[in-house]
Amino acid sequence: MLLEAIEHRPKMNWAYTVDKETIHLRLRTKKNDVEHVDVVGGDKYAWDRTKTEIPMRVFASDALFDYWECEVKPPYRRFKYGFKLQGGGDTVWMNEDGFHFTERKNSDDFYEIAYINPEDVIKTPEWAKNAVFYQIFPERFANGDPSRDPENVQPWGGKPEVDSFFGGDLEGVRQHLDYIQDLGVNAIYFTPIFKAPSNHKYDTEDYLQLDPHFGDIDTLKKLIEECHGRGIRVLLDAVFNHSGKTFKPFVDVKENGADSVYADWFHVREYPIDVKDGIPTYETFSFEPNMPKFNTGHPEVKKYLLEAARYWIGEVGFDGWRLDVADEVDHRFWREFQTVVKEAKPDAYIVGELWHEATPWLQGDQFDSAMNYPFTYAVRDFVALGKTDARKFSYSLSAQLARYPQPVSHAAFNLLDSHDTERMLTVADGDKNKLKLAVAIQMTYPGTPCVYYGDEIGIDGGADPDCRKCMEWDESKQDLELRGFYKQMIALRHEYAALRTGRFDILHAEEGERTLAYRREDDEATLIVALNASDRAETIEIDAGTASAWEVLHTGEAEAQQDKKLKASGERLTIELPAYGYVVLKAE
Amino acid sequence: MLLEAIEHRPKMNWAYTVDKETIHLRLRTKKNDVEHVDVVGGDKYAWDRTKTEIPMRVFASDALFDYWECEVKPPYRRFKYGFKLQGGGDTVWMNEDGFHFTERKNSDDFYEIAYINPEDVIKTPEWAKNAVFYQIFPERFANGDPSRDPENVQPWGGKPEVDSFFGGDLEGVRQHLDYIQDLGVNAIYFTPIFKAPSNHKYDTEDYLQLDPHFGDIDTLKKLIEECHGRGIRVLLDAVFNHSGKTFKPFVDVKENGADSVYADWFHVREYPIDVKDGIPTYETFSFEPNMPKFNTGHPEVKKYLLEAARYWIGEVGFDGWRLDVADEVDHRFWREFQTVVKEAKPDAYIVGELWHEATPWLQGDQFDSAMNYPFTYAVRDFVALGKTDARKFSYSLSAQLARYPQPVSHAAFNLLDSHDTERMLTVADGDKNKLKLAVAIQMTYPGTPCVYYGDEIGIDGGADPDCRKCMEWDESKQDLELRGFYKQMIALRHEYAALRTGRFDILHAEEGERTLAYRREDDEATLIVALNASDRAETIEIDAGTASAWEVLHTGEAEAQQDKKLKASGERLTIELPAYGYVVLKAE
Repeated sequence: MLLEAIEHRPKMNWAYTVDKETIHLRLRTKKNDVEHVDVVGGDKYAWDRTKTEIPMRVFASDALFDYWECEVKPPYRRFKYGFKLQGGGDTVWMNEDGFHFTERKNSDDFYEIAYINPEDVIKTPEWAKNAVFYQIFPERFANGDPSRDPENVQPWGGKPEVDSFFGGDLEGVRQHLDYIQDLGVNAIYFTPIFKAPSNHKYDTEDYLQLDPHFGDIDTLKKLIEECHGRGIRVLLDAVFNHSGKTFKPFVDVKENGADSVYADWFHVREYPIDVKDGIPTYETFSFEPNMPKFNTGHPEVKKYLLEAARYWIGEVGFDGWRLDVADEVDHRFWREFQTVVKEAKPDAYIVGELWHEATPWLQGDQFDSAMNYPFTYAVRDFVALGKTDARKFSYSLSAQLARYPQPVSHAAFNLLDSHDTERMLTVADGDKNKLKLAVAIQMTYPGTPCVYYGDEIGIDGGADPDCRKCMEWDESKQDLELRGFYKQMIALRHEYAALRTGRFDILHAEEGERTLAYRREDDEATLIVALNASDRAETIEIDAGTASAWEVLHTGEAEAQQDKKLKASGERLTIELPAYGYVVLKAE
Repeated sequence: MLLEAIEHRPKMNWAYTVDKETIHLRLRTKKNDVEHVDVVGGDKYAWDRTKTEIPMRVFASDALFDYWECEVKPPYRRFKYGFKLQGGGDTVWMNEDGFHFTERKNSDDFYEIAYINPEDVIKTPEWAKNAVFYQIFPERFANGDPSRDPENVQPWGGKPEVDSFFGGDLEGVRQHLDYIQDLGVNAIYFTPIFKAPSNHKYDTEDYLQLDPHFGDIDTLKKLIEECHGRGIRVLLDAVFNHSGKTFKPFVDVKENGADSVYADWFHVREYPIDVKDGIPTYETFSFEPNMPKFNTGHPEVKKYLLEAARYWIGEVGFDGWRLDVADEVDHRFWREFQTVVKEAKPDAYIVGELWHEATPWLQGDQFDSAMNYPFTYAVRDFVALGKTDARKFSYSLSAQLARYPQPVSHAAFNLLDSHDTERMLTVADGDKNKLKLAVAIQMTYPGTPCVYYGDEIGIDGGADPDCRKCMEWDESKQDLELRGFYKQMIALRHEYAALRTGRFDILHAEEGERTLAYRREDDEATLIVALNASDRAETIEIDAGTASAWEVLHTGEAEAQQDKKLKASGERLTIELPAYGYVVLKAE
């Protein structure tokens, strides 16, 4: 048994609580090295009476490791535990102080969940786990009120440049709620709408004011009310890391230097504030002089920003925040932010823009979830670019699932593209079948899917600003077949809770191959997703488990085939998949 | 290279900031497997201009792993990085997405410290890193005011039983400040002094009132003032996990059940509160009906307890808190607690009673330090019980140092015994030489040493209540030689900062042997501690580094020998050590 590979630590993804009775424990071992693992545990104050052994199961595997998991419900909300590992004829006990080759008589050196405090439980909003999001870049979605157009507005549908305006606004969104609802999504994610000079509004001028080109507060409230009336939740984006250049306190510091009453609102290294050899004399986002970084440790800055955090949720009615550049802001600020936001709306959904491992923000005390770009890239590389084989793709997904507590994975913000990336259709070089396959994975994978506006009708676009084209409202120019496909996949996700919060198990992912199959399962249903990310037809055979007949719920192929049933032969199920085809099966 | 052994994750002990310019990075590899590691990193927004390679050094090794460390000062407070490992002729690059066998062209998949926010810096109080503590159990230290004696007080020096009272009080402490100061300690840790029925006061009746048997608030304030006047800081113990049975809100819930206005102050499972088959119908410490657990998520409970947290620091003048049963209280409470306490006194020292791995509390947001019982047990097993060899002892120390950020290790509360354990002299079966050797290690090791009252004059004692004997004030019954030794060792620690916050490197720790040598080093001095935890004389030879002459600063042997100098022969230094002997050397 390779002891160096075995990993467990308190809290994080290894030992966390999901409600006030339930603990999830996880352990990492070398891949294919350990055959059986039991948690040996009990109440430290009633050890003899409560001692129990609980088997773990492998819930994820990547290139180097197997990840084991089990659930524990200790009778008195306390649990002291070690691990008993068996493999290759050896038995090893792992406690907090290391490895032992005989069972320890006392439990002093065991790990501990000292007490399950409700305040430390990792819970993410139930609605978010069950949501499908639609991301809207308001300047480019629909122009519903031309009287609010900025000067120099371009004709709708023109080529987007860095500084161009097309007149999209909130009234435009409101007028298209039927369209949005028809797609089947039940949540909207808006990129920023606060007053700001740019078209993207990530350079905030006023955190408490709506951008007048987008509408007034009444339009916004009416929009949110109508969304809520349709069962659609609304997520708002904002930048708490830095302001824009027209933010009054920053203007004041520029004008008055160290004498400004706002001097401590920013991190100024040298007055007067200036740019020397391309480096601002104050901290900024990147080296961008127009995006001065907030001193989020300053009480007045906190007061101002936290009031904004509260106001848009508590008074205007948004259902959560997407937080730009979240990793550059301090953890103390985010903890206070969470407190304020969840007080205003206990089930508010907080999503951080975190491109890297997000564990330090996802311990239940700051964010519910992160923008899941690792998922984006894994799908891109496997489906759109063909750079990875099925095995490597499955390792990438598994490593992500192993990295985070389950409630976080179930609310992970799974996007295929966004205002910050090329559109998936463009990454796929315009191959609609690849886009559909990517969407099929997204909609059948744990986590909260988000559709970037226009993807569903075939809008393409390269990197910013090209990915921010105007929405196409002329149906003759929309890809209606694609839109129909999105509707089907979204409906399928809504129909089966197993696709949202069920167990996820890889069934088939071989090295050098491009076919993949995985199972999603809960108490209600067992589904299998099988897919082929190659350009030629493939046939795969997978373990059918106990089911012998399978209903085809959905397939990329012609409608006629959808009534087909598949029969397992013995325990094996044979599935034929066309190039870039996929099928979703349900055990009968 | 064993990839499965290599570990790094964001934050925790792996990537943390110690001031607003400085990052510490660490990496774990299989023991003796990797020859060289470089951090490859730079500013993500100015990669080409700032890219740098920084070599790491092995700072700790245990049974399975080497732990590497380096310091980075990125010019713009941002750092994106990967690791370049060389060993056995191979070069491997490790980034956030895994291992690569060629250097990656772009840095997208590197790890990141997105920005060094001052609020996230891990800082522990400078005074605590430089303190030697003296732990006082007030009921047993000195009776300075017999008018405050409890009823049924026993004659001073009698055998302590679970319920006995001997009349110790704060005036008694005040009267012996000369004694305490003479010992050389510069901090006192008081076990609880709030009003409570027991002799140990861990069953609080009133968190805002001093126990009348210990004194009144004026005596206390005078005591603290006198301590501060002598350069002695004062740490106070309290239990925020549970109250005692006479705590008024609990009495009210007992009397009025669900109708009590305090019903939500506790976790009651069933009314009326009762004990059924030995299990209270409400949550308690252990199954102890007289120690009802607080609902620390309740706003009124928080308000009450946090006011106590503030009052004793901000108004009465204590310099920090030692927190009983800290691991059973929720993290949210402790974060608010830290905010309140550090607002009242920015350099307050917060020490949690955490017997297990304490990382989840030691990320800069809750505690500065934990009661370092893993250190206690390691010293016990090696020195007093002879259960481990030098190699295993060194592994145990190294694993602890690797587990925590450096500022935490430098403020770790290193105790040999306490009111909760047998005294070290008793563990050592009365062998004073073993006790002295244990103290020599404690006083030359990173972390904040604490002397349990009476250890320094030879008081012994088994498990509670025997470890809580009355202090012996009759000098003819004190071991004055031992006391002199403590004074010397404490003075030595104060004299050399290298013993407090210098680097720690094991020089000699062989399997099956009981001799050990380590180096403590800073810019001012290089010291070597060599010791022999066996019952026969030993001679060891160690690498003397660049120094050829060594001054003997201290030794367990007769005073005459202390002027001796040791000369290295070539690069080797030969040291003779009697049974349970030790020597502290300084490079000339």
